Amino acid sequence: MLVVMRHDATARDIDAVVDTIREMGYDARPIPGKQRTAIGLIGNDGKVNADRIEALNGVLEIIHVSQPYKQVSREWKEEATVITLDNGTRIGAGEVAVMAGPCSVEGEAQIIGIAHRLRDQGATILRGGAYKPRTSPYSFQGMGVDGLKLLARAREETGMAIVTEAIDADSLDRVAEYADIVQIGARNMQNFSLLRRAGRAGKPVLLKRGMAATIKDLLLSAEYLLAEGNGNVILCERGVRGFDTHTRNLLDLTAIPVVKSLSHLPIIADPSHGTGIRSKVIPMARAAVAAGADGLMIEVHPDPERAMSDGAQSLYPDQFAEMMEQISVIAHAIGRSLVPPLVPVEEGVPQLA
Amino acid sequence: MLVVMRHDATARDIDAVVDTIREMGYDARPIPGKQRTAIGLIGNDGKVNADRIEALNGVLEIIHVSQPYKQVSREWKEEATVITLDNGTRIGAGEVAVMAGPCSVEGEAQIIGIAHRLRDQGATILRGGAYKPRTSPYSFQGMGVDGLKLLARAREETGMAIVTEAIDADSLDRVAEYADIVQIGARNMQNFSLLRRAGRAGKPVLLKRGMAATIKDLLLSAEYLLAEGNGNVILCERGVRGFDTHTRNLLDLTAIPVVKSLSHLPIIADPSHGTGIRSKVIPMARAAVAAGADGLMIEVHPDPERAMSDGAQSLYPDQFAEMMEQISVIAHAIGRSLVPPLVPVEEGVPQLA
Amino acid sequence: MLVVMRHDATARDIDAVVDTIREMGYDARPIPGKQRTAIGLIGNDGKVNADRIEALNGVLEIIHVSQPYKQVSREWKEEATVITLDNGTRIGAGEVAVMAGPCSVEGEAQIIGIAHRLRDQGATILRGGAYKPRTSPYSFQGMGVDGLKLLARAREETGMAIVTEAIDADSLDRVAEYADIVQIGARNMQNFSLLRRAGRAGKPVLLKRGMAATIKDLLLSAEYLLAEGNGNVILCERGVRGFDTHTRNLLDLTAIPVVKSLSHLPIIADPSHGTGIRSKVIPMARAAVAAGADGLMIEVHPDPERAMSDGAQSLYPDQFAEMMEQISVIAHAIGRSLVPPLVPVEEGVPQLA
Amino acid sequence: MLVVMRHDATARDIDAVVDTIREMGYDARPIPGKQRTAIGLIGNDGKVNADRIEALNGVLEIIHVSQPYKQVSREWKEEATVITLDNGTRIGAGEVAVMAGPCSVEGEAQIIGIAHRLRDQGATILRGGAYKPRTSPYSFQGMGVDGLKLLARAREETGMAIVTEAIDADSLDRVAEYADIVQIGARNMQNFSLLRRAGRAGKPVLLKRGMAATIKDLLLSAEYLLAEGNGNVILCERGVRGFDTHTRNLLDLTAIPVVKSLSHLPIIADPSHGTGIRSKVIPMARAAVAAGADGLMIEVHPDPERAMSDGAQSLYPDQFAEMMEQISVIAHAIGRSLVPPLVPVEEGVPQLA
Repeated sequence: MLVVMRHDATARDIDAVVDTIREMGYDARPIPGKQRTAIGLIGNDGKVNADRIEALNGVLEIIHVSQPYKQVSREWKEEATVITLDNGTRIGAGEVAVMAGPCSVEGEAQIIGIAHRLRDQGATILRGGAYKPRTSPYSFQGMGVDGLKLLARAREETGMAIVTEAIDADSLDRVAEYADIVQIGARNMQNFSLLRRAGRAGKPVLLKRGMAATIKDLLLSAEYLLAEGNGNVILCERGVRGFDTHTRNLLDLTAIPVVKSLSHLPIIADPSHGTGIRSKVIPMARAAVAAGADGLMIEVHPDPERAMSDGAQSLYPDQFAEMMEQISVIAHAIGRSLVPPLVPVEEGVPQLA
Repeated sequence: MLVVMRHDATARDIDAVVDTIREMGYDARPIPGKQRTAIGLIGNDGKVNADRIEALNGVLEIIHVSQPYKQVSREWKEEATVITLDNGTRIGAGEVAVMAGPCSVEGEAQIIGIAHRLRDQGATILRGGAYKPRTSPYSFQGMGVDGLKLLARAREETGMAIVTEAIDADSLDRVAEYADIVQIGARNMQNFSLLRRAGRAGKPVLLKRGMAATIKDLLLSAEYLLAEGNGNVILCERGVRGFDTHTRNLLDLTAIPVVKSLSHLPIIADPSHGTGIRSKVIPMARAAVAAGADGLMIEVHPDPERAMSDGAQSLYPDQFAEMMEQISVIAHAIGRSLVPPLVPVEEGVPQLA
Repeated sequence: MLVVMRHDATARDIDAVVDTIREMGYDARPIPGKQRTAIGLIGNDGKVNADRIEALNGVLEIIHVSQPYKQVSREWKEEATVITLDNGTRIGAGEVAVMAGPCSVEGEAQIIGIAHRLRDQGATILRGGAYKPRTSPYSFQGMGVDGLKLLARAREETGMAIVTEAIDADSLDRVAEYADIVQIGARNMQNFSLLRRAGRAGKPVLLKRGMAATIKDLLLSAEYLLAEGNGNVILCERGVRGFDTHTRNLLDLTAIPVVKSLSHLPIIADPSHGTGIRSKVIPMARAAVAAGADGLMIEVHPDPERAMSDGAQSLYPDQFAEMMEQISVIAHAIGRSLVPPLVPVEEGVPQLA
Repeated sequence: MLVVMRHDATARDIDAVVDTIREMGYDARPIPGKQRTAIGLIGNDGKVNADRIEALNGVLEIIHVSQPYKQVSREWKEEATVITLDNGTRIGAGEVAVMAGPCSVEGEAQIIGIAHRLRDQGATILRGGAYKPRTSPYSFQGMGVDGLKLLARAREETGMAIVTEAIDADSLDRVAEYADIVQIGARNMQNFSLLRRAGRAGKPVLLKRGMAATIKDLLLSAEYLLAEGNGNVILCERGVRGFDTHTRNLLDLTAIPVVKSLSHLPIIADPSHGTGIRSKVIPMARAAVAAGADGLMIEVHPDPERAMSDGAQSLYPDQFAEMMEQISVIAHAIGRSLVPPLVPVEEGVPQLA
């Protein structure tokens, strides 16, 4: 940690910083400069109360040389984290995992029907919201536990793993009971109570980047999960707030290679929310795979025109099939492949090919 | 609502939109244009499923002429909402209410001591965090219910009202029990479960704008509270995410007059979080009052250099006194005044002058 | 164009809008709504003075249904614009064109040497700055016309086409004299005088998106070029201003398919400036091609550690070769290919294979 | 300057950085840390080629402890710069200077008429565009030199000083000939050729902040002017690009106290462009003065409904009078005052009271 002093800081100000650092149990090393002095804090164990130093007289700014996160970092764990689901899908091992399904679970025929199609087209993980965080209190809020049961039924029939969102303590417990992956949505990325609970839920967690979250913020939120003992965390880039109204969000694909440098955790992309426009989903899905994403989350609806939410950004099933073909070739272009499709076995649920 | 068609939309596409609108129970009025056709939806009752129309072929975009929020709007209720606290402080009635105190409750001497000073300097509402949402799991997380009890003690001694943050269902119930105003922080602005619970908690709610929240998003989150029957909502501008690292956030003071045009709810500003820098708090507090804010939320610590959080943006008590003098004159310049100070009475807790 | 009235607009306000529209020579069609009235302006020829209407009493907002740009739009010209350079490179015809070279021309050995390597690795267009817009007046500002002459020499030797930036009227005239493509940089995207002059320079123009420019702004700036009679315009996404400091800019790859829907002009991406980090250039180059970019602009330096500018984002020549292989496979995955390489011919400059 | 090494940087990487720093003529001081090593560069004279170091193997990032600007900084010149115009108006001396007038000069009656009213209401500087940078090539582009002549006529009659925008080399020369202050608009803030020319024009310059410009960028652009010998620079905050469409821009008033800490140059605010909405101009003008602005730039039109540009954000003359009264009281609240009004003298042009 580096404490940069104002150019008009007095010798007394500098001494006070040095004394405070030593009082806190660290070593201080002043570095005089032409314009101003900086003071290096040596021995930072990640628990330094920077606020206390920043509040001292004459301090211009604190520069953090160490990252505030630990367990999520590549420096803590060099090898990539691989998350293996019950149906054999591995996330983070170099294969591209595809999560697909409707925005919301709307009924049995809808979710079971689309699951079969998606499974046959190569997706191994089914998405579908049972608890929906909606900006308006008057919008459809999801089927709740009935939706979870339908997802479980779809899993039984197709062999797909299930990912679905939890929005509070109650729904989290239920989602953890039914789903293979617990999703924490962008709006709850800094709902730290929910993160702690998710960290103790015993299931892998898909953590979506918040709309105003820096990559550091995202990693710190993931750190909450690891700090509770849950290392099975999948990050998800789904677009940040941008100034152009042509798209719903600004999909920040560069976050993918940046996260992969900083952390051992896998990261996927959600081009459906990232663009908000059906015709842009396939190009950006391709781009995400080309950028190195470990997976995709894609909204597909059997009949987007009648979807209860997000119809305008949902692919038609035929478009999804086209996307799968294209991303498969792209994955190979960079030395990767898609997670192999689930194939029916004589009895029991389908398994990875 | 206006449905704008692509320039290459066919007559059949247009008919499908008209039919869908009618099937949904509304009237449709096509408006042919030189470049493209638009279709007006007549009779919008705020429950139109726009997703369904947006998903139709040939639709370029949906333009919402009506606002998606209702009860928070000036059109729903023309006169300003006024929230009156037990100690007589009124928020939204043209007086500027000042909430002040440390970022975190750290102990009895700290909170009782600062409360006395702030009360004597004219603040009528005491702030102090007992439950802290921190970006890092390794940072101080607050004293919890012990902090709430200390705040209650400070209220008994000084007559100040209490505002403090709730971060989940459990803390919300406790905060509602002890505090006069329940604060929902920026990171939880779209934690809709928490909003619903806050809407039923029977206490006024201070709702802070999220870092990526548009004003429409903020009003929709407030709508969740009103939809649960709680009309005592105070909005708070505290800075949005900006690209300049000189300040912690980008304080959007224009939001104050914009919100006041759109809604009957009072809005205050938090220049402490909005700037993140002690020396910028007073200028921006003055600016907020000049822009028409109904109040301020200010971090003040008896000894910022030893604060457990946010020391760098906390005012010294003497600076707070200086600020109160300046904003008092500014309030008068625009035909307002500060909420009168609490004055000790012979027995019992102090009351408004 | 739709004029949305405030909910409290009077009948007289509405009449005034209708009268004004008619006085301006258009037809007006009021659309009464539940909350408010909107008034459609019929016959918009793109010359409506919206400011005058927006200034009328009771007007809430103006909604532009028609786009403010014309000649750049797909509605004006359906088929894609293809720009053919003297060396045979075609941009916009479905092949991916690669522009590569150092940030700045620094000397003869540097530019000629790198040009040979890049040509041999498949690039057909050489980039290199002779006039550099630098944020600091104390940074290296480019070699000027001497740099242009070296670029011309490199063209003679290698057959590559030349793209280089103009920053004012004088440099524009010189660049137009020497280069095959005149580049207008992000900081000058709304330097309208320069755009007009570029529109009359008789050379194709590469127009980079400004850091705060919406896609509409970018297309309007291109419109300046077309309005001067220059239809040979190549757009370039190079990152917008974002809030995360991990990258220099926020590369908005979704702009590629969005622009291709709205306009017939080709669009390329610049992942060097878009990320600012060498190790992120290749992943984002791949992603740009996967998203449908018509080309790439890549900084490559023979010795990045000694580059006079942008060394940290310049590829080593070997990395460039690796990138070319990867993007070639990705281009094929989406039914495209790279522009064929230039091959030496017995006498004269090399030609496309 | 601090060079932060990656945690996996080798001893050889570190040595290479140290050697390079020494080769460049500076001293290097390694600071070993728990996670990584940092290397302090001692003796930075502001001419270090950071790109060269950043390009070395193992370098994570460069942290600039010194500012890249010099002459604009408080460290270069402690006392505030005061700019005195011919009519006696002083900018930067603690008085609030008001520049007001229409967006565009539209004709003699318009500009002379409004000048008289504004002068009588206390403004001492007249604004009005003769050269207009417009996003669309089809919008009104200004009266050019005829507009300048009308502004000069208005000055003769009223005694007001003139500020008007230059958009290229030609217009700059003309503007410098006629006006008292040369304005460089937001879109040209990084048009470095224009800045250099403005720096040599012999007139004070009003430099507006670009929509994506950090405060550092703004100060570096001002540095271009000072580097050419022109110290009479007035900065102007006029809103940055934000994500909320309720306002045209996001007025960043915190930039005012931030700039005043970092630089000796005066800074004013333009709430007309900063909000884009007439009804928000007065609140934000008040807020700007309360935040410490050295002046305001306000659009006022005798008949906004017929303005050729920016009618929707132009005040009516009566509103301007109301604003002047309010900001006068606010200025006094913070120990300032307005620049005294111009009063007619028996013969010759009016003078400051």
